[in-house]
Amino acid sequence: MNEKIKGVNLGGWLVLEKWMSPHLFDGTAADDEYYLAQDLPAAVYQARISQHRANFITEEDFLRIASLGFNLVRLPVPYFVFGDRAPFIGAIAEVDRAFNWAEAYGIKILLDLHTAPDSQNGFDNGGISGVCKWASEPAEVEFEKSVVKRLAERYGKRPGLYGIEVLNEPATAAMFSDMQRRFPPRDPAKAAGSAPISFDFLYQYYRDCYDLLRPLLPADKVIMFHDGFDIDKWEDFFKQSDFANVVLDTHQYLMMAEMKNHDLSLAAYEKTMTDFGKKIAAVNQYVPVVTGEWSLFNSYTAGVDTNGGINPTQQEFGGATHLSKEELRHAYQTLWKTQVDAWNQGIGYIYWTYKLNIDTINEPAWYGWDCWALQRVVDKKWLAPQDI
Amino acid sequence: MNEKIKGVNLGGWLVLEKWMSPHLFDGTAADDEYYLAQDLPAAVYQARISQHRANFITEEDFLRIASLGFNLVRLPVPYFVFGDRAPFIGAIAEVDRAFNWAEAYGIKILLDLHTAPDSQNGFDNGGISGVCKWASEPAEVEFEKSVVKRLAERYGKRPGLYGIEVLNEPATAAMFSDMQRRFPPRDPAKAAGSAPISFDFLYQYYRDCYDLLRPLLPADKVIMFHDGFDIDKWEDFFKQSDFANVVLDTHQYLMMAEMKNHDLSLAAYEKTMTDFGKKIAAVNQYVPVVTGEWSLFNSYTAGVDTNGGINPTQQEFGGATHLSKEELRHAYQTLWKTQVDAWNQGIGYIYWTYKLNIDTINEPAWYGWDCWALQRVVDKKWLAPQDI
Repeated sequence: MNEKIKGVNLGGWLVLEKWMSPHLFDGTAADDEYYLAQDLPAAVYQARISQHRANFITEEDFLRIASLGFNLVRLPVPYFVFGDRAPFIGAIAEVDRAFNWAEAYGIKILLDLHTAPDSQNGFDNGGISGVCKWASEPAEVEFEKSVVKRLAERYGKRPGLYGIEVLNEPATAAMFSDMQRRFPPRDPAKAAGSAPISFDFLYQYYRDCYDLLRPLLPADKVIMFHDGFDIDKWEDFFKQSDFANVVLDTHQYLMMAEMKNHDLSLAAYEKTMTDFGKKIAAVNQYVPVVTGEWSLFNSYTAGVDTNGGINPTQQEFGGATHLSKEELRHAYQTLWKTQVDAWNQGIGYIYWTYKLNIDTINEPAWYGWDCWALQRVVDKKWLAPQDI
Repeated sequence: MNEKIKGVNLGGWLVLEKWMSPHLFDGTAADDEYYLAQDLPAAVYQARISQHRANFITEEDFLRIASLGFNLVRLPVPYFVFGDRAPFIGAIAEVDRAFNWAEAYGIKILLDLHTAPDSQNGFDNGGISGVCKWASEPAEVEFEKSVVKRLAERYGKRPGLYGIEVLNEPATAAMFSDMQRRFPPRDPAKAAGSAPISFDFLYQYYRDCYDLLRPLLPADKVIMFHDGFDIDKWEDFFKQSDFANVVLDTHQYLMMAEMKNHDLSLAAYEKTMTDFGKKIAAVNQYVPVVTGEWSLFNSYTAGVDTNGGINPTQQEFGGATHLSKEELRHAYQTLWKTQVDAWNQGIGYIYWTYKLNIDTINEPAWYGWDCWALQRVVDKKWLAPQDI
């Protein structure tokens, strides 16, 4: 892409996160899709999933994203996208439709393999909370590669394809203990053996995926690697390899900064993000860097210390401070511009996320979480249109 | 309301129309909610309805409608809204939430009782296609009044309430044969005894509802009557009554004009709608008139004669002519402005509808039907913002 990436994630559509579509989990004890499929009768699980997929993201959303001036969507897909991992339901028909929408409305798709069997990170969005064993299961590592390969075979030549990200957010040591704090396993026995993913494993997995994909993809299609939550670990890897058209994906959330004893103030966030822009500029010298996930969400505007992004499906927060409408708009517009300026030290940004179905009016505990949804950021005028 | 009504219908949410959310009907032979509830196992029906209601209209939609500058939503509700008509599922919790959203975002709600047991019109949106027997069943007429009364008791004092429309689109003789052509009954035995609703019945029903509602509603809340598809039948009724704060609702669709051997051209539509504006101005001398349903949809921009609005769930149309993007925008912007100017000869307008979940890209038969959705009209720039 010749211009900067101005992108948005289609989170919560084909890969579920309970907090983004809580009604899908109504009446169950499930915190993730693994247990949702276990807890519901098969016909009801099927009905919920099919209605969700038909409604959560539609043609209208691609139309609107394009009309706002965005040029790319990152599309998280689960490892069972091809429908070969019962009881989970394949989603390839939805991906096919998404490519037709993207091409009709002139935006690109970054396919993002967001989950792996037994999970690469233990997040709810990895498919099963508190479990992180995939990397220790060679057959499942091979299965994951087969999904990457089949995605390339099916979509490699589509004009709407920007590229393929071979694995989302592998939890290396820097993130592992935080994952354990935020996402306790429902079945500790199933979590036994979970461990951080090593960089040596990750380097090898990425090399294998590159060797698999490069011959299948036209030269203009990108192969993307997530940084495993440590952008400092990649200089030798890229300098010692002879990769063509690869991009490094880094995810930067204000709530991650907050976990490092960060001051919960606008000025502090601005400084941190500006500094991170300088870091991106340096890394971008040896590999193009996209900030593939980021958000306006922070504890200052939420009015309560969220301990690194704990949300109301996990814990109720009382006594939040509500800023005035004007203060809120000023804070969000400032954070949007500061962050986009930082991300544009690399090749651009992809907001997390386009949509979430929470209700801040009838369930006031969600106050502040609505800024996760680009739809609402636009409608609330929390970004100045010239800053897209 | 001191300003003109700039409204939009929340069609297809609590009252289903198959063509507006076809996926809800996947795998069934049902053409309406009556048979959807019969054709699906109870748990699957429940799952589909609850997911649909939680997703089709949300807080974000109220936020967006307000941010666009609209000041009212018309909210169709079914006769089983209070949950006392199994197997249909009550929807009062959704209406409660909608009032909280409307009040938070500063827009008004017109509650519209859109269906009746055994139907007042035989349309799919009356709940059961091809059946129109309600008016001949005194117990069901009393039931319908009880719903009107309970709505007034529950929402009468809400600041977000604009008013209550006591019955949507009763099919008088002017519409009855067209209904029979467009909506054949699935079970002819069940349709036996269907007949047009007489104006004498309607006058009496409206008087009864007025007498029921006026003592329950604060003086500033409107009581609204649909014109039964004949705006010329109301002069004596209003002049001979001593009603306080009532409004007459007329529904005007280009496709209805087309049925009267209308020329399928932009100029012809413009003339018809301008003439109708003069009619509204005249009627508005003795009762305030709102155009409570209208749309940009027409056979000229659809590129095929739709025979009065037959849609692709009823019949596939081949060989549609596609206008250029510029021609389409010109046609729609012209039709928007011409029609809004006409409706503003009365007290304002309410577009049909805010949203529909059709896919014009993957199912090209839907080309042209997307203009039914205000969301898409805005995103496609088919209305000029100053004309809202």
